Amino acid sequence: MPSEPLALGIDIGGTRVRAGLVDAQGVLRARAETATDARGGPAAVVAQIVKLADEVAASVERGDLVGAGVSAPGPLDTVRGVALGVPTLRGWVDVPIAALLAEALGLAVRLENDGIAAANGEWRFGAGRGLSSLVYVTVSTGVGGGVVADGRLLRGRFGMAGHVGHMTVVRDGTLCSCGNRGCWEAYASGTAFAVRAGREPRAVFAAAMAGDAAALAQVAEEADWLGLGIANLCHLYSPERVILGGGVAKGFALLEPGIRARLLRNAMPAFRDVGVTAAALGENAGLVGAAALLFEGKG
Amino acid sequence: MPSEPLALGIDIGGTRVRAGLVDAQGVLRARAETATDARGGPAAVVAQIVKLADEVAASVERGDLVGAGVSAPGPLDTVRGVALGVPTLRGWVDVPIAALLAEALGLAVRLENDGIAAANGEWRFGAGRGLSSLVYVTVSTGVGGGVVADGRLLRGRFGMAGHVGHMTVVRDGTLCSCGNRGCWEAYASGTAFAVRAGREPRAVFAAAMAGDAAALAQVAEEADWLGLGIANLCHLYSPERVILGGGVAKGFALLEPGIRARLLRNAMPAFRDVGVTAAALGENAGLVGAAALLFEGKG
Repeated sequence: MPSEPLALGIDIGGTRVRAGLVDAQGVLRARAETATDARGGPAAVVAQIVKLADEVAASVERGDLVGAGVSAPGPLDTVRGVALGVPTLRGWVDVPIAALLAEALGLAVRLENDGIAAANGEWRFGAGRGLSSLVYVTVSTGVGGGVVADGRLLRGRFGMAGHVGHMTVVRDGTLCSCGNRGCWEAYASGTAFAVRAGREPRAVFAAAMAGDAAALAQVAEEADWLGLGIANLCHLYSPERVILGGGVAKGFALLEPGIRARLLRNAMPAFRDVGVTAAALGENAGLVGAAALLFEGKG
Repeated sequence: MPSEPLALGIDIGGTRVRAGLVDAQGVLRARAETATDARGGPAAVVAQIVKLADEVAASVERGDLVGAGVSAPGPLDTVRGVALGVPTLRGWVDVPIAALLAEALGLAVRLENDGIAAANGEWRFGAGRGLSSLVYVTVSTGVGGGVVADGRLLRGRFGMAGHVGHMTVVRDGTLCSCGNRGCWEAYASGTAFAVRAGREPRAVFAAAMAGDAAALAQVAEEADWLGLGIANLCHLYSPERVILGGGVAKGFALLEPGIRARLLRNAMPAFRDVGVTAAALGENAGLVGAAALLFEGKG
């Protein structure tokens, strides 16, 4: 019997699949990842996950694990454990992913929409520790999120709450990856940022750090779009803090003044002092947050 | 001792103050209202409330009441019981309204932002009975709301969640009553609808019912703005149902096809079947929902 409980964390992404062995303090004891076999369909990805799980949990008897927490891109029906139709993973329509993984791994499985899983990670072990209400926003290829409200993860019908990237901020505006127009994601994502700037966000941040005027203007435009959506989230969820993660958050220090300026302009006075901070767990937030579900009952 | 618990419901509005005697089944046993003495400041309104309370609870010993639930326009810090600065009531800045009323009424007081109080009314006794997750939206002079998520009222920091009218849907768009630009309220409220149509919503609905083409187009435009915001709320909160209240909801049958069409266009597939229905309690939702807080512990 192990001296303390351990769980598997699995993070199924559109480009990478990650697995980790996580303890109840949120420490990653082991970690492995591989490129997602997106073309192979669910069965191929399940096989990848079993292999990664064997790798990270090699030192532990499978029966000694509390279970596996699985983060996957949504919208997922996490009540039934089914992927309804994942835009970033073709062929994942009505796939009973929780049941497939429970059988393949021989473990209890908890499935969570990726934004909610990462929000849980940041809440339990990262930039949101000790708070009762927070919004986590991840800005990379797309824009996702998860919410803690009044001391609990906000799930809603089918566990699909917090799809913050798909709130319309411009009626009939720019086409989004979801097929709709004018979503926040279509303006604020790393993809949209790169299209506007004509280069990757990290290159824009580097040039801005060096004082390049065009890059500074591009950063300001990105920060403005981020601030606009964050102001919305403050009115909608009334968080104590908004936590920004994902690749674009690597430029948080550069983005922060513009985010704050837009927040001051768009938020009603009672919401203007809400803190906005960078996430602490980086790309491990989902992994750790999903595993942590196993230590918390219903979370 | 009364045969069953009774509570006072108080609804402080920008134009009317209402009081009701409410039982645990949500039945209004008595009801009274008056024009809000908005110019008199908080003390004048407290005096009005005491008079209304004496009227509706004349048949009951004050000590036999469970307490008073108070709905007021926000943003209110309902944790401390303080009105932070109510746009529709001048002079209501940092007013400890819960404490003032508790002393004046000699009762335990529960203060709630008006959208949340009305959401509670519809959830407990109206169009949301039996649901775990819903969004209530009231569309009249402004646009307000309240949310039930996973079987609980969503409150957030200071109890200020659900200010749905102030999410930006057009960056730097039309000026809103809050001072910001492009809020949903600035496009979807009854006020905005009346400005676009050049007449009151009820007149537009009457003309549309009679087949007037201009009125039908005006209704379609209003429905489109409502549907746009409702699609956002589906992604953000993942409700089982969206409940539309307020004066504009009197035209719900006319608005519904346009709301549904925009929802189908803007929502991701997993959110397209969310029901949208008209509220059931009319202008009593806040009154009944506020009183019901006294029967429910923390609600």
